[in-house]
Amino acid sequence: MTIESCTWAPLGRLLEPASVALVGASSNPQSLGGRTLANLRRWPGRLHLVNPHQTRIDGLACYAAIDRLPEPVDCAILAVPSTAVEEAVRQCAAGGVGSVIVFASGYAEVEGPDGREAQERLAALAGAAGMVLVGPNCVGIATHRNMLNAAFAGFPPLGIAADAPAAAAPRRLALVSQSGALALALSQAVERGVTLTHVLTCGNSAGIDVADYLAWLADQPDCDAVALAVEGLREPRRLPAALDRLAASGKPVAMCRLGHSAAGREAIRFHTATHPLAGSPVPGLPSAGAPVIDVLPIESLIETASFLAKAPRPVGRGIAILSGSGGTGILAVDAADRAGLSVPQPASTTQDRLRRCLPDFAPVRNPCDVTAQSTRHPTLLLEAADALLDDAACTALLVPWGRSQSADLFQPLSALACRHGKPVVLAWMSPVPRLEMVATVERDPFLAPFASLDSACRALAGWIGR
Amino acid sequence: MTIESCTWAPLGRLLEPASVALVGASSNPQSLGGRTLANLRRWPGRLHLVNPHQTRIDGLACYAAIDRLPEPVDCAILAVPSTAVEEAVRQCAAGGVGSVIVFASGYAEVEGPDGREAQERLAALAGAAGMVLVGPNCVGIATHRNMLNAAFAGFPPLGIAADAPAAAAPRRLALVSQSGALALALSQAVERGVTLTHVLTCGNSAGIDVADYLAWLADQPDCDAVALAVEGLREPRRLPAALDRLAASGKPVAMCRLGHSAAGREAIRFHTATHPLAGSPVPGLPSAGAPVIDVLPIESLIETASFLAKAPRPVGRGIAILSGSGGTGILAVDAADRAGLSVPQPASTTQDRLRRCLPDFAPVRNPCDVTAQSTRHPTLLLEAADALLDDAACTALLVPWGRSQSADLFQPLSALACRHGKPVVLAWMSPVPRLEMVATVERDPFLAPFASLDSACRALAGWIGR
Repeated sequence: MTIESCTWAPLGRLLEPASVALVGASSNPQSLGGRTLANLRRWPGRLHLVNPHQTRIDGLACYAAIDRLPEPVDCAILAVPSTAVEEAVRQCAAGGVGSVIVFASGYAEVEGPDGREAQERLAALAGAAGMVLVGPNCVGIATHRNMLNAAFAGFPPLGIAADAPAAAAPRRLALVSQSGALALALSQAVERGVTLTHVLTCGNSAGIDVADYLAWLADQPDCDAVALAVEGLREPRRLPAALDRLAASGKPVAMCRLGHSAAGREAIRFHTATHPLAGSPVPGLPSAGAPVIDVLPIESLIETASFLAKAPRPVGRGIAILSGSGGTGILAVDAADRAGLSVPQPASTTQDRLRRCLPDFAPVRNPCDVTAQSTRHPTLLLEAADALLDDAACTALLVPWGRSQSADLFQPLSALACRHGKPVVLAWMSPVPRLEMVATVERDPFLAPFASLDSACRALAGWIGR
Repeated sequence: MTIESCTWAPLGRLLEPASVALVGASSNPQSLGGRTLANLRRWPGRLHLVNPHQTRIDGLACYAAIDRLPEPVDCAILAVPSTAVEEAVRQCAAGGVGSVIVFASGYAEVEGPDGREAQERLAALAGAAGMVLVGPNCVGIATHRNMLNAAFAGFPPLGIAADAPAAAAPRRLALVSQSGALALALSQAVERGVTLTHVLTCGNSAGIDVADYLAWLADQPDCDAVALAVEGLREPRRLPAALDRLAASGKPVAMCRLGHSAAGREAIRFHTATHPLAGSPVPGLPSAGAPVIDVLPIESLIETASFLAKAPRPVGRGIAILSGSGGTGILAVDAADRAGLSVPQPASTTQDRLRRCLPDFAPVRNPCDVTAQSTRHPTLLLEAADALLDDAACTALLVPWGRSQSADLFQPLSALACRHGKPVVLAWMSPVPRLEMVATVERDPFLAPFASLDSACRALAGWIGR
């Protein structure tokens, strides 16, 4: 297979269904079927339940079997044990169902040939019927646009937060994660102000894989950038092809590949049993269009994607560092060094401007420390930021954010970033950042928050380094 | 100077004063003098104010000058501009004051000889009088035992949190940070349940340095371990000597050295102007006694110190990983690999025990994934933890902590850790951990929380690697 020959699964009936069947619907709110039913209740489409042992659940009629459904549904969610999955997939294929989501585990990830063969039978059944197969061993999917939450995981509410200011037009991220548990953990970033519009998982990827999701997202208007956590694919070369599509459509991608260690790749064999991607470079990453950045560790994934969604094209290679204390400035330049970032000294005109605004005892250099005086005179920081952003050698400004710095500075810093066309990145120094402050920065289109200096510097290096 | 010849400043009059004078006391709550006065009000000792322009501030009498004070105070805090510092230090020395804290900046950290010479004069004045000098360019100190907060920074309340369970006997950390802004940021870890009893800063370290603080802490009963953030000392070899004292007294140290990069060391010259420590190994780290671990990045400092305060001696070199999902297990083993940790496969008896408790489709190996079944059957995790901790090759258990895992597991996990004499380390996978959950784990004497897998693995590697 060449990259050019890649084809992508048609995901319309899966991700924009008019009708959904939940097979294994349950009135027990702790069960997979019960949790999925609760998640589906906000979805406004035609929802049908299948359960041979009940006539109604939660006010909805139950059908005794898949072949009794009143229509060939766009998507069937199989919340049934693995022993019942194959027959259910067979009935879905026979009944013209558009897509199936298989939660059950116990397939290729289990030692021995049985699970792998069972998984191959599911893929063959779905493939022969032209039916999209998600999973097995997955937690499902959620999209904001049509309020679909076809998952047993407790994903947070997607879309623009209810308490977001009306003026904000936040960047919208899609989260694509092969692992459901990681998708659940990472999606909690909405509590930090991140706007997620899609959470898409695929588990063992017997049918569709992360590449199918990426290719589909390239065409979605409510996705500005993608955060991707991936173990492997059946055919790893599909990944660069899909990343190419996203890059060409102007959507940057932050990507965390699992299995960097040999032990990690061995563990993948016992998890999704896909072909691991890490350990070697992904062949043929896009060289043009929006950036694709390899992220490590996983904690940096969402904030890096969000930064990429906001950042304009870099205009140079150097960054300026502006701190409210000497210690945090030193830590920042150490982190910049670890990330391979250039921290050039300011031009003489910039130095003159800094000299005019800083206290006598503050050094006129990069990193620039406005000293504790800035807590009494907050505009010091803004004047220095303006001078540094104006320097031709500065393509982004990194500000270690201390506990005593005021949220009143966010709006003027954002205005400066906008005017200079250069991102201003705030790295929180506190081990317990105030979530509402981080969210304010996150929702700003010109500022980007990071939980650590290293995370910020690696993101800047990836963005500049293309 | 040899290490053996190091002498340590007598810090009793600084850190356990009976009388304190605040020079530059102010009724303006935004000023250095006003903020320091507010911080001092909980201290029960004899507090005197010096301000030539006012007769009373906040109900306390003001003296016109240092030489009018009613007694030779143990500690004088100089919240005055740098232009007034030298004369104030001279008066303190003449008046038998025990120690002075100098907040003002504009000394050795400023380019040119003037600042350095001014700083040397302060050191000479204090030295000749046998007076302890803290600073200049520092934010002050705080100790829990005598409720002293002699700082202009807004340190959080020290000591055991009011809402901590009565049964808990948390480990007590001292935070020693040359940089005041870092001390302020790091001290916020009390909101995560960390018990801090001392926050000690020294800025430019013209008089006492971090080594003096460390040597003093070796003898303090309310300090179980130390977190140290340091740029440099006048005489760097004093540091290993002080670390030796702490190690010999059984108090582990987590140490973050600033200035790992050349640019960082250059920035130190413009900050505290001390001799940088990073970039080369600290000579002669203790080889016996409690561990001293180099920590990077700074975010890991407090949680590593807290872990060391709890961890017994390692009984082997391998760790076991126990996850509620395959993805987080893979990430954990990748992080272990980056930290150089060994993740050995379980012994056959351990495998038998795991096989009996895990679902059929879960792999019987290390990393051990109890799968999503554990959200419905939480005791799965405990049974697997017991089996893994019982394995002779396991010296600690690392658990990536997912969003869907229950706080009800903390107490039984703690009991297992206690019984096996091996620490159980929980690494939070959520980007927005619930603080009350983290605090519960933090206050537990047998469990240790970490904000990331890499931070946990580096701490484990440092602990095992001695």
